[in-house]
Amino acid sequence: MKCILVLGAGRSSSCLIDYLLKEAKLNDWHIVVGDLSVEAAREKVGEHKNGEGIFFSIDDVALSSTWIAKADCVISLLPAFLHLKVAMLCLELNKHLLTASYISPEMKAMHEEAVKKNLLFLNECGLDPGIDHMSAMLIIDKIHDKKGKLISFESYTGGLIAPETDPENPWRYKFTWNARNVVMAGHGTARFLEAGQFKYVPYQQLFTRTTSIEVPGFGAYEGYANRDSLQYIDTYGLKDIRTMIRGTLRNKGYCDAWNVLVQLGCCDEGYVLENLPAMTHQSFIETYLRSGSGTVEDRLCQQFKLDKEGEEIKRLRWSGFFSDEKIGMMKGTPAQVVEHILSKRWTLSPLDKDMIVMWHRFIYSIGDQLYEVQASLVAKGDDSISTAMAKTVGWPLAIAAKLLMLGKITERGVCMPIMPSLYEPILEELDGLGIRMHEDERRIK
Amino acid sequence: MKCILVLGAGRSSSCLIDYLLKEAKLNDWHIVVGDLSVEAAREKVGEHKNGEGIFFSIDDVALSSTWIAKADCVISLLPAFLHLKVAMLCLELNKHLLTASYISPEMKAMHEEAVKKNLLFLNECGLDPGIDHMSAMLIIDKIHDKKGKLISFESYTGGLIAPETDPENPWRYKFTWNARNVVMAGHGTARFLEAGQFKYVPYQQLFTRTTSIEVPGFGAYEGYANRDSLQYIDTYGLKDIRTMIRGTLRNKGYCDAWNVLVQLGCCDEGYVLENLPAMTHQSFIETYLRSGSGTVEDRLCQQFKLDKEGEEIKRLRWSGFFSDEKIGMMKGTPAQVVEHILSKRWTLSPLDKDMIVMWHRFIYSIGDQLYEVQASLVAKGDDSISTAMAKTVGWPLAIAAKLLMLGKITERGVCMPIMPSLYEPILEELDGLGIRMHEDERRIK
Repeated sequence: MKCILVLGAGRSSSCLIDYLLKEAKLNDWHIVVGDLSVEAAREKVGEHKNGEGIFFSIDDVALSSTWIAKADCVISLLPAFLHLKVAMLCLELNKHLLTASYISPEMKAMHEEAVKKNLLFLNECGLDPGIDHMSAMLIIDKIHDKKGKLISFESYTGGLIAPETDPENPWRYKFTWNARNVVMAGHGTARFLEAGQFKYVPYQQLFTRTTSIEVPGFGAYEGYANRDSLQYIDTYGLKDIRTMIRGTLRNKGYCDAWNVLVQLGCCDEGYVLENLPAMTHQSFIETYLRSGSGTVEDRLCQQFKLDKEGEEIKRLRWSGFFSDEKIGMMKGTPAQVVEHILSKRWTLSPLDKDMIVMWHRFIYSIGDQLYEVQASLVAKGDDSISTAMAKTVGWPLAIAAKLLMLGKITERGVCMPIMPSLYEPILEELDGLGIRMHEDERRIK
Repeated sequence: MKCILVLGAGRSSSCLIDYLLKEAKLNDWHIVVGDLSVEAAREKVGEHKNGEGIFFSIDDVALSSTWIAKADCVISLLPAFLHLKVAMLCLELNKHLLTASYISPEMKAMHEEAVKKNLLFLNECGLDPGIDHMSAMLIIDKIHDKKGKLISFESYTGGLIAPETDPENPWRYKFTWNARNVVMAGHGTARFLEAGQFKYVPYQQLFTRTTSIEVPGFGAYEGYANRDSLQYIDTYGLKDIRTMIRGTLRNKGYCDAWNVLVQLGCCDEGYVLENLPAMTHQSFIETYLRSGSGTVEDRLCQQFKLDKEGEEIKRLRWSGFFSDEKIGMMKGTPAQVVEHILSKRWTLSPLDKDMIVMWHRFIYSIGDQLYEVQASLVAKGDDSISTAMAKTVGWPLAIAAKLLMLGKITERGVCMPIMPSLYEPILEELDGLGIRMHEDERRIK
């Protein structure tokens, strides 16, 4: 009886676990779900006969080894910085490993040994990274097959809320994924290639350097660049490309409003705030303003040249940043305070629906003819449990695990799903689950 | 025969070494100057009979131990991150240690053991930190002696150029100290107390949140806050103070122009630039701008809403940032490129004079009466060797070493010169050398 060990029973695990439990019944597999909260693990498994929820802590090496030793394949949904510990045990115990996270240099360094041991360490196999790679490579390979020369590739993905959800919410956003990562987004310098030039965009510029994106049939969005797009030039095999940008997609107006928090400097986890127990939402913002008379709202507008009735202030006001409410934290960094304040209104209600929007644009030439391909994917969640995020992150991993258990994946070593042998069967099955890109091609010269 | 070991024969060591050699002759001491460049060490000592220049590398533990073992006291002018290695050897070999650098947490942790071994580890004994602490504590102690209650303390120091030096230079600035630190200035978040409120100023705000400073008899300057002023509330014993700011002083206009580089995000040492060998000054700036038509200068003005004939652009243009000159580096971070470009015009010529400006303002009350004390120090260099920076950093350390060798310092452990037993004799001797504060007190209520 084959065994799949799923580490992490958090927000994004439900669709993955449901999928695996269904497959387990068909194939007579055993699914073990491990989490620091054994209740969360057991709840995800429910009464299913092929499943089991257990306490799991990667810091307990003996316990971790015991459970990993019993598995044929491990899926890690743990925070990305913990994957390395999982990977080292998988190497030691000869187990395959799947994650939805970016490949770290340390993970990459395990490639040779994983190959030697005939193990698959498949990463970046969720939504973004994941479905974005797979759907992009499908189109890129088609273009190369017909001897097209790729000139430009832009790709943006966002986890948003559905139009009918929380219509009063001016951000058109809630936390559907790791809230800390949303608050810390954009730290460091974004790097990409634009019209043949390397471009570097620091944090203080990032949310002002947005791109307008029209997703056919779904309206206008905006995007900001992700950390390092340059490395994917090699990964995707696009040596002579002139434009290469991967980014994050948001509803219109989000970036301008978020930029106020960026300029204030309050999304920082580098230090702990003085005097936090006594602070209100408003006095938190005050600590980032010049001293002076007038309300916090007025002085914020003055300092950043904002219109008091403008869209940025409307969003911040809606989030309660100018209220006299106590923050209600004893100790924390500014970033934790921002996350805490935003959580008060950015947490999904049970019937809220989230929505994933992914959009690619390719420009390529054949001879002196120029073509544009736009491809977009929109997926809605069912509710606050079966979110579009949980589906699109969890299903690609679950499908890959199934294919691996069925002996249908022969790739080995540290890799991501950019080869047809991986992306073809995964995308095909996702299509059956209602997750699919719509492509539109036209000649532009 | 007592022996003082001076580590580092760089830019700031000349006045310190000259002072010690003079004292060595009077007291029959031996001065050993160690540097990675034995030539630099020997040049600083010259033909002096009481001195010796040697090769020294703190990474060579055997060599370092040999030389430190021979000394009675070590003065470290090495880069601050190396002090820890020196300090560990000093602890092991029972030697006193003096530095002009901020006390790191690791250095602080050595306090108990240093006391136990009857050793002085005196830090922050240069200019800033150093003379600023000493001159402030002299006044603070006087205020406390007359039962005054300190309400506000502001202190700014800058290493500038003298008015007669390089009159065409619109920045009124050259590198007179560690150039890397000038380029990296302000990274992280500045913290201070203002009118009873904690204030945090991130890098992206720092150079716009400047304070005008009028130094009596020397004109108008501007200041920006240093990294962490809050810790000195305890250090100086100012529990109930309402305003506490330490900062850096610059000539008017410097901060606005520097802020353009800050907003561009090009003072970053977190990554290595692509394509650097082919880059010109101008194309370096280009990598931080939106793509578009028009010159780099025009697009910079447009992106940051700058006047093309304005003071900021004038300064950047003077520094050559828009020239077609090749940068001339094969590999480097953006911060290294900025330092390299600035060095072309910000290096002291042999006859250039630098100038140190330090300014404190204290507000205190006695009963319902309010007083203000302003204290300022201005010191000019003689030339590009005997700079004001070398005097004001080197002499306090040299004087402290002399007093220690003469048995006149009884303090032990990790400390800074904030007690009268240290600051009184050092300030007195500095006064004789022409380095003195001018105080001006007036009743304001």
